[in-house]
Amino acid sequence: MKISIVGITGYSGLELVKILNNHKKVELVSIHATKEVGRRLSDVYPYLTGVCDLEIEAYNAEKIMQKADLVFFATPSGVASSLAEEFVLADFPIIDLSGDHRLPADVYQEWYKKSPAKQSVLNKFTYALSEYADVKDRKFIANPGCYATATELALIPLVAVSLIETESVIVDAKSGLTGAGKALSESSHFVNVHDNYVTYKLNHHQHIPEIVQTLQVFNPEMPEIQFSTSLLPVNRGIMATVYCKLKKDVTVADVASAFTKAYSDKPFVRVQDSLPELHNVIGLNFTDIGFAYNEKTNVLTVISVIDNLIKGAAGQAVQNLNLMQGWDETEGLLMTPSYL
Amino acid sequence: MKISIVGITGYSGLELVKILNNHKKVELVSIHATKEVGRRLSDVYPYLTGVCDLEIEAYNAEKIMQKADLVFFATPSGVASSLAEEFVLADFPIIDLSGDHRLPADVYQEWYKKSPAKQSVLNKFTYALSEYADVKDRKFIANPGCYATATELALIPLVAVSLIETESVIVDAKSGLTGAGKALSESSHFVNVHDNYVTYKLNHHQHIPEIVQTLQVFNPEMPEIQFSTSLLPVNRGIMATVYCKLKKDVTVADVASAFTKAYSDKPFVRVQDSLPELHNVIGLNFTDIGFAYNEKTNVLTVISVIDNLIKGAAGQAVQNLNLMQGWDETEGLLMTPSYL
Amino acid sequence: MKISIVGITGYSGLELVKILNNHKKVELVSIHATKEVGRRLSDVYPYLTGVCDLEIEAYNAEKIMQKADLVFFATPSGVASSLAEEFVLADFPIIDLSGDHRLPADVYQEWYKKSPAKQSVLNKFTYALSEYADVKDRKFIANPGCYATATELALIPLVAVSLIETESVIVDAKSGLTGAGKALSESSHFVNVHDNYVTYKLNHHQHIPEIVQTLQVFNPEMPEIQFSTSLLPVNRGIMATVYCKLKKDVTVADVASAFTKAYSDKPFVRVQDSLPELHNVIGLNFTDIGFAYNEKTNVLTVISVIDNLIKGAAGQAVQNLNLMQGWDETEGLLMTPSYL
Amino acid sequence: MKISIVGITGYSGLELVKILNNHKKVELVSIHATKEVGRRLSDVYPYLTGVCDLEIEAYNAEKIMQKADLVFFATPSGVASSLAEEFVLADFPIIDLSGDHRLPADVYQEWYKKSPAKQSVLNKFTYALSEYADVKDRKFIANPGCYATATELALIPLVAVSLIETESVIVDAKSGLTGAGKALSESSHFVNVHDNYVTYKLNHHQHIPEIVQTLQVFNPEMPEIQFSTSLLPVNRGIMATVYCKLKKDVTVADVASAFTKAYSDKPFVRVQDSLPELHNVIGLNFTDIGFAYNEKTNVLTVISVIDNLIKGAAGQAVQNLNLMQGWDETEGLLMTPSYL
Repeated sequence: MKISIVGITGYSGLELVKILNNHKKVELVSIHATKEVGRRLSDVYPYLTGVCDLEIEAYNAEKIMQKADLVFFATPSGVASSLAEEFVLADFPIIDLSGDHRLPADVYQEWYKKSPAKQSVLNKFTYALSEYADVKDRKFIANPGCYATATELALIPLVAVSLIETESVIVDAKSGLTGAGKALSESSHFVNVHDNYVTYKLNHHQHIPEIVQTLQVFNPEMPEIQFSTSLLPVNRGIMATVYCKLKKDVTVADVASAFTKAYSDKPFVRVQDSLPELHNVIGLNFTDIGFAYNEKTNVLTVISVIDNLIKGAAGQAVQNLNLMQGWDETEGLLMTPSYL
Repeated sequence: MKISIVGITGYSGLELVKILNNHKKVELVSIHATKEVGRRLSDVYPYLTGVCDLEIEAYNAEKIMQKADLVFFATPSGVASSLAEEFVLADFPIIDLSGDHRLPADVYQEWYKKSPAKQSVLNKFTYALSEYADVKDRKFIANPGCYATATELALIPLVAVSLIETESVIVDAKSGLTGAGKALSESSHFVNVHDNYVTYKLNHHQHIPEIVQTLQVFNPEMPEIQFSTSLLPVNRGIMATVYCKLKKDVTVADVASAFTKAYSDKPFVRVQDSLPELHNVIGLNFTDIGFAYNEKTNVLTVISVIDNLIKGAAGQAVQNLNLMQGWDETEGLLMTPSYL
Repeated sequence: MKISIVGITGYSGLELVKILNNHKKVELVSIHATKEVGRRLSDVYPYLTGVCDLEIEAYNAEKIMQKADLVFFATPSGVASSLAEEFVLADFPIIDLSGDHRLPADVYQEWYKKSPAKQSVLNKFTYALSEYADVKDRKFIANPGCYATATELALIPLVAVSLIETESVIVDAKSGLTGAGKALSESSHFVNVHDNYVTYKLNHHQHIPEIVQTLQVFNPEMPEIQFSTSLLPVNRGIMATVYCKLKKDVTVADVASAFTKAYSDKPFVRVQDSLPELHNVIGLNFTDIGFAYNEKTNVLTVISVIDNLIKGAAGQAVQNLNLMQGWDETEGLLMTPSYL
Repeated sequence: MKISIVGITGYSGLELVKILNNHKKVELVSIHATKEVGRRLSDVYPYLTGVCDLEIEAYNAEKIMQKADLVFFATPSGVASSLAEEFVLADFPIIDLSGDHRLPADVYQEWYKKSPAKQSVLNKFTYALSEYADVKDRKFIANPGCYATATELALIPLVAVSLIETESVIVDAKSGLTGAGKALSESSHFVNVHDNYVTYKLNHHQHIPEIVQTLQVFNPEMPEIQFSTSLLPVNRGIMATVYCKLKKDVTVADVASAFTKAYSDKPFVRVQDSLPELHNVIGLNFTDIGFAYNEKTNVLTVISVIDNLIKGAAGQAVQNLNLMQGWDETEGLLMTPSYL
């Protein structure tokens, strides 16, 4: 299968390149960006020498459709929304890592403050949290957001069988810097991040409606959730700490059973007896989930960790590709963990 | 006023030395520890040359009472509980930075898993969160815990005037490594902390009963709180993120007004319009507090940050000394911020 | 004495504010910048509340001369070179923290790639490495560069009495990120600095001619030195590792004696028996120096560490102010170390 | 080919497990340690679930020889020296990652302060810097040290064809914390490493004789080198900065040509036009080498970076295995770079 990537120079695009390099069923045939056009990727990023020596090309939908069988969009929000239509009309498969095809048009506009994709295009896309989506033979995939992935995998098993008081959910999520992208800003300057911890976009993060919408698929009465996001002084990794109250008569054994049932046959979710640590998933496509119940407060704490660029972006995108094609779900995704 | 410190080689003891060095009304006359006895402190820690060149002495209560007018205990929990009695019987003033005189004996035993101080000794001690305690002319001070300080300062103004649903409180607190002390362990090895984020003692942290007990002074109906503690890959600093639901008809203006009223005349609490960042209080005795309300979930988020070794330990201890003696509350505590 | 600062929003300007706040003989009367004009400094940097609440003003030489008795320039290179003349003509004292008045015009132009100050202005300035300069009653001070300070203090005692082969000097210097200033660039983005180590400006750093020129004052035969600069993933601190060969018959005892003689009466240089660590000087005006000799290679290694913003910039500037005025050299500079 | 690993719980042992997991020609059949015996490796390190679920066994030479075809020793120095003999006598292949079989007995004793292996055993071992060693069909491999690997690859091309003044070599090398192993000590406590930079074992590092001995193979007149080692506040990575003077009439083009000639056909050494950055090799088996010449000082600076656990330990060990067996040199070693 031949693959093109649009948005190659961002963190997610680069991560896709690395993952696809180890994938036995695909060949990367073209890479596209607005910067560094005409240079070989490995000249711009010498550590990718031998991994990908393709030349970066300007965006050209027609050429992509001629050379490739599927295109990944790893572009900032607001880009794929206008570019996807041409592919959709040609019935040419897309996996969009951006937020542009995850939400209804009005919700997108409210939270992203950008023009949404056309309704006819949005209708074609399937939101694909790999562990829950039915994407076999689908052609247009909206890949979930990073915070959304960690949070949804922690909450769906509880919401789906009504174990928790839905209005009690509070999520305190933290991410490494790559989650903020490569843009230069005061908030990504080393001195402002190192030895610091900053909460941002409180009550305004654009992944909130994505999470709520997904949870409502499993329980239509799910209300808005309380959700905070903070910046950890690390490069990679998200921890979502989820607090919620158990319904009357629900026991911690019910919780354990719900998680086991949900994930025992899922290769990339590891339910643990202890609380997961961030570094255990760095460089990997796993989601580690653990939990603890406090009898005195009736609060269940669920902790979910992912690598924001892998399970939270490029890894899940390839997992979705595997599922679309009916390939082994883990193809290309059993990387050697290098965190330590 | 002449001062002795017991437990000089721990982080809090060293911080006390540095602060007292700039304090105009006190003189440090003896320093005590179980390690490095006989060496000058500045030989063990060359960066303290000129700050404190006293020789480290073995513990000797009688000598302390002869030479000094007040003793600070900066010892690990379980030490001051047995040593304090001799001073109490002699009516010799103590400021205890450890947790040994903060809780009733049975609660201490349950949470610290150590033998408590005698009841007759505990009765003499005043728990002194500086902004709320009346310590003028008191002789025996139990200095608050670091997490407890950050959390109590965030919650008391809300609890005292009944603005929040008391059973809704959830605290997600994070600390730098110095909070864990100098002991060598897997969990303080650089490679296990750097690029990591770990939640520990979930539902079991010994500051929980301290916080609840303090809040109950302001509202006797305050129940157990949900409280988590995690390790940030930084040396210093605590952020307590507090979530709670507002009572019916309470507005965010009521919240703002409660904080202003509580702290407008307190030199070391800065209530801010924006959310506080960790690094703004490093090296300082300040507590920065900010908050934001989410109308959709009725959740108020309050963020409180301190330097765990200063406002969370040695700084507040000196603040309490100043208040005991009727000195200017800020004496010795207006350090030059060096974070950047 | 009344003080103005030009270039208040850079790292050095802010550090000056903090230091002068604790200085008993001066009063800060105006602060100037091109950004944030009209806002109070403590509104821009809330952690400076109570430290400096002055309003940031646009640059205005006349007003500065009316209100103040001395002006510090904490501006990027290329700014003071054109602004200083007006003050010089009025015989109004300047301490310039930038590189604009340290080098002869032609050398400045070659290494800084900027227009130099006028010769008549340069002639008025004294290059003032505090431990060696005679600045009493001088009016125009060129404050040394950060790398230059660490390197010169390590080498002068050896060069001055001809202990080393002058052509053998190799300096491997490393600095934290604040040395690069606040400008946003790829190289200051958190993800590019964290977990990385990068050598930059190899053989081209503008402090090279400054160092050589200073050493030549002590030994006119001192040739060009080999000098490299790298970026450490920390906020503050410089370590200069100096390698050089001893002259025939010179012993390590001669080296020790030279350092002792040079610095035993200097309050801010601590010659140590062991090798200095970076964190021991953070937040302080000290230079720690240690050395070791290798008999097999005849190489002496000298290690010198400073805080780049204090002894390497604002701290030394205040030290020079104290010396100019005949005040106690340490006034305002005995900060409480907060590194840990 | 069936493999056993002795010393599984150290950093190098774990790294071997991860690499061999992706190696198509080998099967890991037993893992041995003194700690955690009886537990599954993936229970001790949950992030290795699916990578290695073998049970950790006590050391048992006989069993290893029964089950496996080759054994890796990833033990601390002083262990393999006594254990290897049994395998050597049985002509059973060993790759020893420790320093126990790299040096003559007397030199080992002098620098490691431990009892050396028997001379008859040492005689059997081949020191194997992969790019230079002839290990095809050898049975007993002494794998190079981490600092030694980075330094030797930078210097051999220059020494071998006599481009540099041999007595002028000065190496300033820096390593992340994993280089120091997992032992708990003051110097590996997070607070002592973070925001710090420390030079250690100056003139006494045990890799010095290893480097000198290797260079003397290429130029018998190579004298002792000046070599320093420092601790970077990162988990992984070594940068060796090598300074040396060029011989008369040698040009920088000669240097470039020597490096090209040495490494153009070597898959794991990348000679670059620019200076290498540490993070470009993290998680990879590459050595990146760059250099710059200073005409004024006649000093050539060569910078060489590796991942200390991969090219500096487990990666090179597998590279040597591939070479011994005549397999593709890169088998198992083309990992996906995950640094960013």
